[in-house]
Amino acid sequence: MAMEDLIYRPIGHIRSCFPEKFGAPRQPGLIKHAITEIVLTQEFSSVEAVSGLTAFSHIWVLFHFHKTAAAGWKPKVRPPRLGGNKSVGVFASRSPFRPNPIGLSAVRLLSVQEHEGLQVLSVEGGDFVDGAPVLDIKPYIPYVDAIEAEGGYAVEKPEPCLEVRFTEEAEHSLRQFSPQYPNLRELIIETIGLDPRPSYKKSQTDSKVYGLALYNLNISWRVYDDYALVSAVTPLEVNE
Amino acid sequence: MAMEDLIYRPIGHIRSCFPEKFGAPRQPGLIKHAITEIVLTQEFSSVEAVSGLTAFSHIWVLFHFHKTAAAGWKPKVRPPRLGGNKSVGVFASRSPFRPNPIGLSAVRLLSVQEHEGLQVLSVEGGDFVDGAPVLDIKPYIPYVDAIEAEGGYAVEKPEPCLEVRFTEEAEHSLRQFSPQYPNLRELIIETIGLDPRPSYKKSQTDSKVYGLALYNLNISWRVYDDYALVSAVTPLEVNE
Repeated sequence: MAMEDLIYRPIGHIRSCFPEKFGAPRQPGLIKHAITEIVLTQEFSSVEAVSGLTAFSHIWVLFHFHKTAAAGWKPKVRPPRLGGNKSVGVFASRSPFRPNPIGLSAVRLLSVQEHEGLQVLSVEGGDFVDGAPVLDIKPYIPYVDAIEAEGGYAVEKPEPCLEVRFTEEAEHSLRQFSPQYPNLRELIIETIGLDPRPSYKKSQTDSKVYGLALYNLNISWRVYDDYALVSAVTPLEVNE
Repeated sequence: MAMEDLIYRPIGHIRSCFPEKFGAPRQPGLIKHAITEIVLTQEFSSVEAVSGLTAFSHIWVLFHFHKTAAAGWKPKVRPPRLGGNKSVGVFASRSPFRPNPIGLSAVRLLSVQEHEGLQVLSVEGGDFVDGAPVLDIKPYIPYVDAIEAEGGYAVEKPEPCLEVRFTEEAEHSLRQFSPQYPNLRELIIETIGLDPRPSYKKSQTDSKVYGLALYNLNISWRVYDDYALVSAVTPLEVNE
Protein backbone atom coordinates (compact mmCIF):
# COMPACT_ATOMS: atom_id res chain seq x y z
CA MET A 1 0.00 0.00 0.00
CA ALA A 2 1.59 3.26 -1.11
CA MET A 3 1.42 5.98 1.51
CA GLU A 4 1.72 9.65 0.78
CA ASP A 5 3.54 12.07 3.05
CA LEU A 6 1.29 14.03 5.39
CA ILE A 7 1.73 17.76 5.84
CA TYR A 8 0.62 19.58 8.98
CA ARG A 9 0.75 23.24 9.95
CA PRO A 10 1.64 23.92 13.59
CA ILE A 11 -1.21 25.50 15.56
CA GLY A 12 1.21 27.16 17.96
CA HIS A 13 4.44 26.78 19.84
CA ILE A 14 5.76 26.06 23.32
CA ARG A 15 7.17 28.66 25.70
CA SER A 16 9.15 26.77 28.33
CA CYS A 17 11.85 27.23 30.96
CA PHE A 18 13.89 24.50 29.22
CA PRO A 19 15.78 25.99 26.26
CA GLU A 20 17.62 22.70 25.62
CA LYS A 21 16.77 18.99 25.71
CA PHE A 22 19.35 18.39 28.49
CA GLY A 23 17.55 18.99 31.76
CA ALA A 24 14.05 18.95 30.32
CA PRO A 25 12.22 16.13 32.14
CA ARG A 26 11.90 12.89 30.19
CA GLN A 27 8.18 12.62 30.85
CA PRO A 28 5.46 15.10 31.78
CA GLY A 29 4.31 15.53 35.38
CA LEU A 30 7.75 15.08 36.94
CA ILE A 31 8.57 18.75 37.53
CA LYS A 32 5.68 20.70 39.02
CA HIS A 33 7.41 24.05 38.86
CA ALA A 34 7.93 23.72 35.14
CA ILE A 35 5.16 26.05 34.06
CA THR A 36 4.86 25.87 30.32
CA GLU A 37 2.81 27.95 27.95
CA ILE A 38 1.30 27.03 24.64
CA VAL A 39 0.90 30.08 22.45
CA LEU A 40 -1.55 29.54 19.59
CA THR A 41 -0.72 31.27 16.32
CA GLN A 42 -3.00 34.01 15.04
CA GLU A 43 -4.76 31.66 12.63
CA PHE A 44 -5.85 29.29 15.43
CA SER A 45 -6.27 31.86 18.21
CA SER A 46 -10.02 32.39 18.15
CA VAL A 47 -11.87 32.36 21.47
CA GLU A 48 -14.27 29.88 19.85
CA ALA A 49 -11.61 27.23 19.16
CA VAL A 50 -10.66 26.94 22.86
CA SER A 51 -14.11 27.46 24.37
CA GLY A 52 -15.03 24.77 26.89
CA LEU A 53 -11.44 23.61 27.29
CA THR A 54 -11.11 24.69 30.93
CA ALA A 55 -13.89 22.23 31.86
CA PHE A 56 -11.15 19.60 31.53
CA SER A 57 -8.45 19.36 34.19
CA HIS A 58 -5.87 17.93 31.76
CA ILE A 59 -5.08 18.17 28.07
CA TRP A 60 -3.07 16.20 25.54
CA VAL A 61 -0.40 18.13 23.72
CA LEU A 62 0.90 16.72 20.44
CA PHE A 63 4.11 18.46 19.50
CA HIS A 64 7.16 18.21 17.26
CA PHE A 65 10.53 17.21 18.77
CA HIS A 66 12.19 20.10 16.99
CA LYS A 67 15.57 19.91 18.75
CA THR A 68 16.22 16.28 17.84
CA ALA A 69 14.22 15.78 14.64
CA ALA A 70 17.23 16.28 12.39
CA ALA A 71 19.11 13.46 14.12
CA GLY A 72 16.76 10.88 12.60
CA TRP A 73 16.00 7.52 14.17
CA LYS A 74 17.28 3.99 14.64
CA PRO A 75 15.21 0.81 15.07
CA LYS A 76 16.62 0.27 18.58
CA VAL A 77 16.93 2.78 21.41
CA ARG A 78 18.32 2.64 24.95
CA PRO A 79 15.71 4.11 27.30
CA PRO A 80 17.08 5.87 30.42
CA ARG A 81 14.67 3.73 32.44
CA LEU A 82 16.67 0.64 31.50
CA GLY A 83 19.87 2.25 32.74
CA GLY A 84 20.97 3.08 29.22
CA ASN A 85 22.57 -0.33 28.70
CA LYS A 86 19.60 -2.32 27.37
CA SER A 87 17.85 -1.58 24.12
CA VAL A 88 14.25 -1.90 22.97
CA GLY A 89 12.48 -1.17 19.70
CA VAL A 90 11.83 2.48 18.98
CA PHE A 91 8.05 1.81 18.91
CA ALA A 92 8.34 0.27 22.40
CA SER A 93 9.83 3.54 23.67
CA ARG A 94 8.87 7.17 24.09
CA SER A 95 12.23 8.28 22.68
CA PRO A 96 12.17 11.52 20.67
CA PHE A 97 14.38 9.85 18.05
CA ARG A 98 11.54 8.18 16.11
CA PRO A 99 10.44 7.92 12.46
CA ASN A 100 7.90 10.70 12.94
CA PRO A 101 9.26 12.80 15.82
CA ILE A 102 5.88 13.59 17.40
CA GLY A 103 5.67 13.95 21.17
CA LEU A 104 2.59 13.17 23.24
CA SER A 105 2.18 14.58 26.75
CA ALA A 106 -0.75 14.81 29.13
CA VAL A 107 -0.46 17.88 31.33
CA ARG A 108 -2.62 19.77 33.82
CA LEU A 109 -4.32 22.79 32.28
CA LEU A 110 -4.04 25.83 34.55
CA SER A 111 -5.60 28.56 32.44
CA VAL A 112 -6.49 29.81 28.99
CA GLN A 113 -5.98 33.52 28.51
CA GLU A 114 -5.76 35.99 25.67
CA HIS A 115 -2.47 37.85 25.51
CA GLU A 116 -1.70 40.37 22.78
CA GLY A 117 -4.48 38.90 20.66
CA LEU A 118 -3.25 35.31 20.97
CA GLN A 119 -4.70 32.47 23.03
CA VAL A 120 -2.17 31.31 25.63
CA LEU A 121 -2.64 28.03 27.53
CA SER A 122 -0.69 27.65 30.80
CA VAL A 123 0.04 24.06 31.77
CA GLU A 124 1.85 22.42 34.69
CA GLY A 125 4.51 19.75 34.53
CA GLY A 126 5.34 20.05 30.86
CA ASP A 127 8.35 18.18 29.47
CA PHE A 128 8.60 20.45 26.45
CA VAL A 129 11.65 22.21 25.11
CA ASP A 130 11.21 25.91 24.39
CA GLY A 131 10.06 26.69 20.86
CA ALA A 132 8.60 23.24 20.07
CA PRO A 133 5.90 23.48 17.39
CA VAL A 134 2.51 22.26 18.64
CA LEU A 135 0.40 20.09 16.34
CA ASP A 136 -2.75 19.58 18.36
CA ILE A 137 -4.48 20.12 21.70
CA LYS A 138 -7.11 17.61 22.81
CA PRO A 139 -9.04 17.23 26.06
CA TYR A 140 -7.94 14.37 28.32
CA ILE A 141 -11.00 12.13 28.59
CA PRO A 142 -10.58 9.72 31.52
CA TYR A 143 -12.94 6.99 30.34
CA VAL A 144 -10.95 6.44 27.15
CA ASP A 145 -7.48 7.69 28.11
CA ALA A 146 -6.99 6.46 31.70
CA ILE A 147 -6.37 2.72 31.43
CA GLU A 148 -5.26 0.16 33.99
CA ALA A 149 -2.47 -1.03 31.77
CA GLU A 150 0.70 -2.98 32.21
CA GLY A 151 3.63 -0.66 31.76
CA GLY A 152 6.41 -2.94 30.54
CA TYR A 153 9.78 -1.70 31.72
CA ALA A 154 8.49 1.70 32.88
CA VAL A 155 6.24 0.75 35.75
CA GLU A 156 6.99 3.32 38.40
CA LYS A 157 7.29 7.06 38.30
CA PRO A 158 10.91 8.17 38.69
CA GLU A 159 11.43 9.88 42.05
CA PRO A 160 14.00 12.56 42.87
CA CYS A 161 17.22 10.73 43.69
CA LEU A 162 19.61 13.59 44.46
CA GLU A 163 19.42 16.05 47.29
CA VAL A 164 20.26 19.49 45.87
CA ARG A 165 22.46 21.93 47.80
CA PHE A 166 23.72 25.39 46.87
CA THR A 167 27.04 27.13 47.44
CA GLU A 168 26.96 30.59 49.01
CA GLU A 169 27.77 32.10 45.64
CA ALA A 170 24.85 30.23 44.04
CA GLU A 171 22.53 31.36 46.86
CA HIS A 172 23.57 34.94 46.20
CA SER A 173 22.78 34.65 42.48
CA LEU A 174 19.43 33.02 43.25
CA ARG A 175 18.42 36.02 45.35
CA GLN A 176 19.51 38.27 42.51
CA PHE A 177 17.34 36.47 39.93
CA SER A 178 14.37 35.75 42.19
CA PRO A 179 12.36 38.89 41.24
CA GLN A 180 12.38 37.73 37.61
CA TYR A 181 11.98 33.97 38.33
CA PRO A 182 10.25 33.52 41.69
CA ASN A 183 10.21 29.71 41.50
CA LEU A 184 13.78 29.32 40.26
CA ARG A 185 15.07 27.62 43.41
CA GLU A 186 12.29 24.99 43.41
CA LEU A 187 12.70 24.48 39.67
CA ILE A 188 16.44 23.83 40.06
CA ILE A 189 15.83 21.42 42.95
CA GLU A 190 13.24 19.47 40.97
CA THR A 191 15.24 19.42 37.75
CA ILE A 192 18.63 18.42 39.15
CA GLY A 193 16.99 16.19 41.78
CA LEU A 194 15.86 13.87 38.97
CA ASP A 195 19.51 13.52 37.94
CA PRO A 196 19.44 14.48 34.26
CA ARG A 197 22.92 13.05 33.63
CA PRO A 198 23.25 10.26 31.04
CA SER A 199 22.30 6.93 32.64
CA TYR A 200 25.72 5.36 32.35
CA LYS A 201 27.17 8.07 34.58
CA LYS A 202 24.85 7.51 37.47
CA SER A 203 26.65 4.74 39.29
CA GLN A 204 30.05 6.31 38.79
CA THR A 205 32.06 8.82 40.74
CA ASP A 206 31.63 11.91 38.64
CA SER A 207 33.90 14.90 38.91
CA LYS A 208 32.46 16.65 35.88
CA VAL A 209 30.85 20.06 36.31
CA TYR A 210 27.54 20.01 34.43
CA GLY A 211 25.74 22.96 32.93
CA LEU A 212 22.00 23.09 32.58
CA ALA A 213 19.96 25.82 30.91
CA LEU A 214 16.83 27.13 32.64
CA TYR A 215 15.15 30.15 31.09
CA ASN A 216 18.12 32.30 30.03
CA LEU A 217 20.32 31.14 32.89
CA ASN A 218 23.06 28.55 33.14
CA ILE A 219 23.07 26.38 36.26
CA SER A 220 26.43 24.75 37.11
CA TRP A 221 26.56 21.75 39.42
CA ARG A 222 28.40 18.56 40.19
CA VAL A 223 27.49 15.36 41.97
CA TYR A 224 29.02 14.14 45.25
CA ASP A 225 27.79 10.62 46.07
CA ASP A 226 24.14 11.22 46.95
CA TYR A 227 23.82 14.97 46.61
CA ALA A 228 24.29 17.61 43.95
CA LEU A 229 26.00 20.90 44.67
CA VAL A 230 24.96 23.90 42.60
CA SER A 231 27.97 26.17 42.34
CA ALA A 232 26.81 28.95 40.02
CA VAL A 233 23.75 30.51 38.45
CA THR A 234 24.80 32.83 35.63
CA PRO A 235 23.24 34.38 32.53
CA LEU A 236 23.52 32.16 29.44
CA GLU A 237 26.08 33.55 27.05
CA VAL A 238 24.43 35.14 24.05
CA ASN A 239 26.53 33.27 21.49
CA GLU A 240 25.43 29.90 22.88
CA MET B 1 6.76 33.34 15.56
CA ALA B 2 6.76 31.92 12.05
CA MET B 3 6.09 28.21 11.94
CA GLU B 4 7.03 25.94 9.08
CA ASP B 5 4.85 23.11 7.88
CA LEU B 6 5.83 19.69 9.22
CA ILE B 7 6.04 16.70 6.91
CA TYR B 8 5.64 13.13 8.16
CA ARG B 9 5.80 9.81 6.36
CA PRO B 10 3.24 7.22 7.52
CA ILE B 11 4.83 4.20 9.18
CA GLY B 12 1.94 1.95 8.19
CA HIS B 13 -1.80 1.78 7.76
CA ILE B 14 -4.91 0.44 9.46
CA ARG B 15 -6.80 -2.68 8.45
CA SER B 16 -10.21 -2.46 10.05
CA CYS B 17 -13.75 -3.87 9.79
CA PHE B 18 -15.04 -0.30 9.40
CA PRO B 19 -14.66 0.84 5.78
CA GLU B 20 -16.50 4.11 6.47
CA LYS B 21 -16.66 6.66 9.28
CA PHE B 22 -20.38 5.96 9.81
CA GLY B 23 -20.59 3.08 12.27
CA ALA B 24 -16.96 3.24 13.40
CA PRO B 25 -17.05 3.84 17.16
CA ARG B 26 -16.44 7.43 18.27
CA GLN B 27 -13.83 6.40 20.80
CA PRO B 28 -11.58 3.37 21.25
CA GLY B 29 -12.51 0.57 23.65
CA LEU B 30 -16.25 0.69 22.96
CA ILE B 31 -16.44 -2.27 20.57
CA LYS B 32 -14.48 -5.29 21.76
CA HIS B 33 -15.08 -7.34 18.63
CA ALA B 34 -13.55 -4.65 16.45
CA ILE B 35 -10.22 -6.34 15.91
CA THR B 36 -8.00 -3.95 14.04
CA GLU B 37 -4.61 -4.49 12.50
CA ILE B 38 -1.78 -2.05 12.03
CA VAL B 39 0.38 -3.08 9.10
CA LEU B 40 3.79 -1.42 9.13
CA THR B 41 5.26 -0.52 5.76
CA GLN B 42 8.40 -2.28 4.56
CA GLU B 43 10.63 0.61 5.61
CA PHE B 44 9.50 0.41 9.25
CA SER B 45 8.89 -3.34 9.46
CA SER B 46 12.07 -4.49 11.14
CA VAL B 47 11.81 -6.93 14.04
CA GLU B 48 14.09 -4.56 15.96
CA ALA B 49 11.73 -1.58 15.77
CA VAL B 50 8.91 -3.46 17.54
CA SER B 51 11.00 -5.52 19.94
CA GLY B 52 9.81 -5.27 23.54
CA LEU B 53 6.43 -3.87 22.54
CA THR B 54 4.42 -6.87 23.77
CA ALA B 55 5.66 -6.19 27.33
CA PHE B 56 3.05 -3.42 27.29
CA SER B 57 -0.64 -4.30 27.49
CA HIS B 58 -1.74 -1.18 25.61
CA ILE B 59 -0.36 1.12 22.95
CA TRP B 60 -1.03 4.59 21.64
CA VAL B 61 -1.82 4.85 17.96
CA LEU B 62 -1.41 8.22 16.28
CA PHE B 63 -3.14 8.20 12.93
CA HIS B 64 -4.46 10.42 10.17
CA PHE B 65 -8.22 10.95 9.83
CA HIS B 66 -7.99 10.26 6.11
CA LYS B 67 -11.73 10.05 5.39
CA THR B 68 -12.56 13.46 6.79
CA ALA B 69 -9.30 15.41 6.38
CA ALA B 70 -10.43 17.07 3.16
CA ALA B 71 -13.51 18.52 4.88
CA GLY B 72 -11.33 20.89 6.90
CA TRP B 73 -12.27 22.28 10.29
CA LYS B 74 -14.32 24.92 12.07
CA PRO B 75 -13.56 26.62 15.42
CA LYS B 76 -16.72 25.14 16.99
CA VAL B 77 -17.95 21.55 16.82
CA ARG B 78 -21.02 19.76 18.18
CA PRO B 79 -19.86 16.64 20.00
CA PRO B 80 -22.29 13.68 19.94
CA ARG B 81 -21.87 13.53 23.74
CA LEU B 82 -23.65 16.86 24.04
CA GLY B 83 -26.59 15.58 22.02
CA GLY B 84 -25.41 17.36 18.92
CA ASN B 85 -27.14 20.60 19.87
CA LYS B 86 -24.46 22.28 21.97
CA SER B 87 -21.11 23.34 20.61
CA VAL B 88 -17.61 23.54 22.09
CA GLY B 89 -14.26 24.64 20.74
CA VAL B 90 -12.54 22.20 18.40
CA PHE B 91 -9.57 21.94 20.83
CA ALA B 92 -12.03 20.99 23.62
CA SER B 93 -13.23 18.07 21.48
CA ARG B 94 -11.90 14.86 19.98
CA SER B 95 -13.64 15.61 16.68
CA PRO B 96 -11.79 14.43 13.56
CA PHE B 97 -12.54 17.78 11.91
CA ARG B 98 -9.55 19.63 13.38
CA PRO B 99 -6.73 21.86 12.08
CA ASN B 100 -4.33 18.92 11.99
CA PRO B 101 -6.53 15.85 11.58
CA ILE B 102 -4.48 13.55 13.81
CA GLY B 103 -6.29 10.87 15.83
CA LEU B 104 -5.06 9.52 19.15
CA SER B 105 -6.30 6.19 20.49
CA ALA B 106 -5.16 3.90 23.29
CA VAL B 107 -5.92 0.28 22.47
CA ARG B 108 -5.12 -3.13 23.87
CA LEU B 109 -2.25 -4.82 22.02
CA LEU B 110 -3.05 -8.46 21.27
CA SER B 111 -0.05 -9.55 19.21
CA VAL B 112 2.80 -8.52 16.96
CA GLN B 113 3.44 -10.93 14.11
CA GLU B 114 5.30 -10.96 10.85
CA HIS B 115 3.12 -11.56 7.81
CA GLU B 116 4.50 -11.59 4.27
CA GLY B 117 7.60 -9.79 5.50
CA LEU B 118 5.67 -7.00 7.25
CA GLN B 119 5.14 -6.46 10.97
CA VAL B 120 1.42 -6.64 11.81
CA LEU B 121 0.08 -5.46 15.17
CA SER B 122 -3.35 -6.79 16.20
CA VAL B 123 -5.25 -4.53 18.60
CA GLU B 124 -8.64 -4.70 20.30
CA GLY B 125 -11.31 -2.04 20.43
CA GLY B 126 -9.94 0.20 17.70
CA ASP B 127 -12.03 3.11 16.46
CA PHE B 128 -10.10 3.34 13.21
CA VAL B 129 -11.49 3.51 9.71
CA ASP B 130 -9.95 1.07 7.23
CA GLY B 131 -6.94 2.43 5.36
CA ALA B 132 -6.06 5.20 7.84
CA PRO B 133 -2.35 6.11 7.64
CA VAL B 134 -0.55 5.52 10.94
CA LEU B 135 1.95 8.14 12.12
CA ASP B 136 3.31 6.58 15.28
CA ILE B 137 3.03 3.73 17.78
CA LYS B 138 4.03 4.37 21.41
CA PRO B 139 3.77 2.21 24.51
CA TYR B 140 1.04 3.19 26.98
CA ILE B 141 2.92 4.07 30.18
CA PRO B 142 0.46 4.15 33.10
CA TYR B 143 2.45 6.43 35.40
CA VAL B 144 2.42 9.26 32.86
CA ASP B 145 -0.66 8.46 30.77
CA ALA B 146 -3.26 7.26 33.31
CA ILE B 147 -4.40 10.36 35.14
CA GLU B 148 -7.24 10.95 37.58
CA ALA B 149 -8.57 13.82 35.57
CA GLU B 150 -11.82 15.69 35.32
CA GLY B 151 -13.51 14.85 32.05
CA GLY B 152 -15.55 17.94 31.27
CA TYR B 153 -18.69 17.02 29.35
CA ALA B 154 -17.56 13.45 28.60
CA VAL B 155 -17.45 11.89 32.02
CA GLU B 156 -18.94 8.46 31.51
CA LYS B 157 -18.34 5.78 28.97
CA PRO B 158 -21.24 5.49 26.53
CA GLU B 159 -23.10 2.23 27.09
CA PRO B 160 -25.05 0.27 24.49
CA CYS B 161 -28.51 1.82 24.37
CA LEU B 162 -30.26 -0.28 21.73
CA GLU B 163 -31.11 -3.95 21.90
CA VAL B 164 -30.28 -5.45 18.50
CA ARG B 165 -32.61 -8.00 16.88
CA PHE B 166 -32.37 -9.74 13.50
CA THR B 167 -35.04 -10.69 10.96
CA GLU B 168 -35.05 -14.28 9.74
CA GLU B 169 -33.56 -13.14 6.46
CA ALA B 170 -30.73 -11.40 8.30
CA GLU B 171 -30.14 -14.49 10.43
CA HIS B 172 -29.87 -16.55 7.26
CA SER B 173 -27.27 -14.19 5.78
CA LEU B 174 -25.31 -14.16 9.05
CA ARG B 175 -24.99 -17.96 8.90
CA GLN B 176 -23.85 -17.66 5.31
CA PHE B 177 -21.06 -15.16 6.14
CA SER B 178 -20.03 -16.68 9.49
CA PRO B 179 -17.22 -18.88 8.06
CA GLN B 180 -15.51 -15.75 6.74
CA TYR B 181 -16.39 -13.47 9.68
CA PRO B 182 -16.89 -15.60 12.80
CA ASN B 183 -17.57 -12.62 15.09
CA LEU B 184 -19.89 -10.78 12.69
CA ARG B 185 -23.00 -11.18 14.84
CA GLU B 186 -21.30 -9.81 17.99
CA LEU B 187 -19.72 -7.02 15.96
CA ILE B 188 -23.11 -5.96 14.58
CA ILE B 189 -24.70 -6.07 18.05
CA GLU B 190 -21.93 -3.95 19.53
CA THR B 191 -21.82 -1.46 16.66
CA ILE B 192 -25.55 -0.84 16.26
CA GLY B 193 -26.12 -1.16 20.02
CA LEU B 194 -24.17 2.08 20.49
CA ASP B 195 -26.66 3.79 18.13
CA PRO B 196 -24.40 5.34 15.50
CA ARG B 197 -27.19 7.57 14.16
CA PRO B 198 -26.66 11.33 14.25
CA SER B 199 -27.47 12.66 17.72
CA TYR B 200 -30.43 14.77 16.69
CA LYS B 201 -32.25 11.65 15.47
CA LYS B 202 -32.05 9.79 18.72
CA SER B 203 -35.06 11.21 20.48
CA GLN B 204 -37.23 11.08 17.39
CA THR B 205 -39.38 8.40 15.85
CA ASP B 206 -37.23 7.26 12.98
CA SER B 207 -38.59 5.31 10.06
CA LYS B 208 -35.41 5.55 8.03
CA VAL B 209 -33.60 2.37 7.02
CA TYR B 210 -29.91 2.85 7.78
CA GLY B 211 -27.01 1.16 6.05
CA LEU B 212 -23.74 0.46 7.80
CA ALA B 213 -20.58 -1.01 6.26
CA LEU B 214 -18.70 -3.75 8.13
CA TYR B 215 -15.87 -5.45 6.26
CA ASN B 216 -17.24 -5.71 2.72
CA LEU B 217 -20.83 -6.13 3.88
CA ASN B 218 -23.73 -3.74 4.15
CA ILE B 219 -25.90 -4.03 7.25
CA SER B 220 -29.43 -2.61 6.94
CA TRP B 221 -31.45 -1.77 10.03
CA ARG B 222 -34.02 0.56 11.47
CA VAL B 223 -34.93 1.64 14.96
CA TYR B 224 -38.21 0.85 16.76
CA ASP B 225 -38.40 2.73 20.07
CA ASP B 226 -35.80 0.93 22.19
CA TYR B 227 -34.56 -1.75 19.83
CA ALA B 228 -32.91 -1.97 16.42
CA LEU B 229 -34.02 -4.52 13.83
CA VAL B 230 -31.41 -5.71 11.36
CA SER B 231 -33.23 -6.59 8.18
CA ALA B 232 -30.43 -7.51 5.76
CA VAL B 233 -26.75 -8.37 5.54
CA THR B 234 -25.58 -8.11 1.94
CA PRO B 235 -22.29 -7.68 0.08
CA LEU B 236 -21.34 -4.06 -0.44
CA GLU B 237 -21.79 -3.02 -4.04
CA VAL B 238 -18.47 -2.73 -5.81
CA ASN B 239 -19.11 0.72 -7.21
CA GLU B 240 -19.72 2.14 -3.73
